Amino acid sequence: MSTVAIPKEEHYARIARVQEAVRAAGLDALLVHSHEADFANVRYLSNYWPIFETAGVLVPAQGEAVQIIGPESETFARDRGYLAKIRRILEYRESADPDYPGVELDTFASIFAECGITPNRIGIAGRSLLPVTIYEALRRDAPKAELVPADDILTNLRVIKSEAELACLREGFRISVIALQAVLEEIRPGLTEQQVVGIAQGAMYAAGAEYEAHPTYVLSGINSTHAIGRPSTRVLQKGDLVQLDIGARVCGYSPSVGFPVCLGKMTEEMHRLAEVCIDAHYKTMEWIRAGIPAKEPVLKFEQYVQDRGCGENLLYGPCHGLGMMEVERPWMESSSEYLLQENMTFQVDTFLQGSEFGMRYENGARVTQEGVEVLAPDLKMEIVEIE
Amino acid sequence: MSTVAIPKEEHYARIARVQEAVRAAGLDALLVHSHEADFANVRYLSNYWPIFETAGVLVPAQGEAVQIIGPESETFARDRGYLAKIRRILEYRESADPDYPGVELDTFASIFAECGITPNRIGIAGRSLLPVTIYEALRRDAPKAELVPADDILTNLRVIKSEAELACLREGFRISVIALQAVLEEIRPGLTEQQVVGIAQGAMYAAGAEYEAHPTYVLSGINSTHAIGRPSTRVLQKGDLVQLDIGARVCGYSPSVGFPVCLGKMTEEMHRLAEVCIDAHYKTMEWIRAGIPAKEPVLKFEQYVQDRGCGENLLYGPCHGLGMMEVERPWMESSSEYLLQENMTFQVDTFLQGSEFGMRYENGARVTQEGVEVLAPDLKMEIVEIE
Repeated sequence: MSTVAIPKEEHYARIARVQEAVRAAGLDALLVHSHEADFANVRYLSNYWPIFETAGVLVPAQGEAVQIIGPESETFARDRGYLAKIRRILEYRESADPDYPGVELDTFASIFAECGITPNRIGIAGRSLLPVTIYEALRRDAPKAELVPADDILTNLRVIKSEAELACLREGFRISVIALQAVLEEIRPGLTEQQVVGIAQGAMYAAGAEYEAHPTYVLSGINSTHAIGRPSTRVLQKGDLVQLDIGARVCGYSPSVGFPVCLGKMTEEMHRLAEVCIDAHYKTMEWIRAGIPAKEPVLKFEQYVQDRGCGENLLYGPCHGLGMMEVERPWMESSSEYLLQENMTFQVDTFLQGSEFGMRYENGARVTQEGVEVLAPDLKMEIVEIE
Repeated sequence: MSTVAIPKEEHYARIARVQEAVRAAGLDALLVHSHEADFANVRYLSNYWPIFETAGVLVPAQGEAVQIIGPESETFARDRGYLAKIRRILEYRESADPDYPGVELDTFASIFAECGITPNRIGIAGRSLLPVTIYEALRRDAPKAELVPADDILTNLRVIKSEAELACLREGFRISVIALQAVLEEIRPGLTEQQVVGIAQGAMYAAGAEYEAHPTYVLSGINSTHAIGRPSTRVLQKGDLVQLDIGARVCGYSPSVGFPVCLGKMTEEMHRLAEVCIDAHYKTMEWIRAGIPAKEPVLKFEQYVQDRGCGENLLYGPCHGLGMMEVERPWMESSSEYLLQENMTFQVDTFLQGSEFGMRYENGARVTQEGVEVLAPDLKMEIVEIE
């Protein structure tokens, strides 16, 4: 089994850096929110990853950070999270809204009081995940406070990866490739898309995954047109193009690898598009390096695909931020003015759409001064036909 | 492979019933919200289950319901969802907050206008999931509207299961038992908890699951004290008690089955608690029938466990609602005054906590006039010691 991990001390150092940013922004505290599927911000600070219930971390400008959980998760949070101060608030409960008769809980007001926080300006990180019910509880308990959008405080930290984070990502890529290889050995007409998912997931847990990095993609035939999708009960047919995208999560880091396989001979259209897609994938890797504006590889990618006569097949891409979430900030878009920096990590996610199929070649890249470190270095992108 | 399914027409009938309730409540429309992990309300109406992005259904008092998605999911939603009218709103995007330069999107205002809705009173279902960002977009586009909590409209429908829903649940239980049996055959000291998860998942997808009904529980040793928890990298030891709770999702229905296994001989304390737990589990099944207040089995359960001398081991239970979510409304709590009705479904989730371990016996039950239909009828609860 793997020995990669994010040390407890690295979590505490992250909290210290958040506190500096909280003070610099003139905030009294930052409320960080996550849920089961979108868990990154809270886990980044505390290693705690909620299930059924949601979770928060309250980082005061000074003093100890507080893990906020729902009524039922205390034993779990104490054993698995790294924060000693754990408080339970009703609104972090399961969406089934239990009443918990007789259970005494905390409130934002009681936590502010014990932490000595006078809530005049509270930052919020994870606003696009924070439910109205929790927002209203905060409003009720801090009626005079200005609630300030403050996602950037976490984003600015998370965007540059430490050595420990990179080790987790490399291990995740290693295991993801093992799962992809297991699928290549067993995929065949007659299986459903969902059955192929089972092959991938069986292999990734055996090799040391803690979870899927994202719902596993096995999208066949017309379903492969889904740039975003879910595997279905569709039975694989001879001649199908199958979009595979497989990710193994390790210590909270969520890489993904994939390429399309054809269960037979590719049609001429598939073959032509696959060649352009593979070339564009490797070119994108060449266009990335520290110091350039992030939009530069995007504009080059779009131009390249157009020059190869496939402009109409463009939908998406070529890169998005990678870390605890398989898709996280920052994206690379044609509007991205920020500069690439060393140890930013991206998925190079090259997707082109044909008339009745879609194809994606995907691998990870760490930005370096000279170019990139490919995160699944042994993964070779080529045309795969399984007879 | 299984042939159970919820017919498209059943989804449309659900929408028609929601519309009746919308009109009865004097609402102009109901906005229903779901996300990737907590997907039930939206899928119940449209069969659409988001990934990466979030999703909504806008049900007007009159006229066609609208599937609301983020910018990237249109092809997927068109192929897999059952609603013809699909609209894209920026705030339903991924939490990485892409900009989508050049992409034209809809807004709540444009959707209200095309549907002929004057938004004076809009109900919200899924408030505890609805992010502030979407709530603010709705506020901005309907500044004069009263936004009314209206979770009950969906809950009241979902709580009584149809024949098609029951067929999906029975199939899910059948597959969950297969996955549990696969684990019993292979579990042994030396594997990590997460590796055992892989055994369960490989088996459940092979047998026809569409997904895990919930993150698979393999909680060993001290981790078994977690009534809510996640499998870890802990290596199973001889003598460990392992809490297994395994669920296979089928067509959006999410059952779970489990019991503790000891990798060796149970200690005296384990053995005594297991006997009480098994007895209480079967007793709970006997105490349920249509027409009684839901608190009745709860009070009997608590009394029974106390009478057997295990009051201090009570933490939780004995039942929670079961359906699309493995935990959904209604809960059975000592405060539950509502009456049990035929075709309500529950997880009978019998959990007792020892000094250094927890144990859970779990199966599903459908309420009938005479008692219950046990949903995994062949699952026998007994003391399991694997030498």
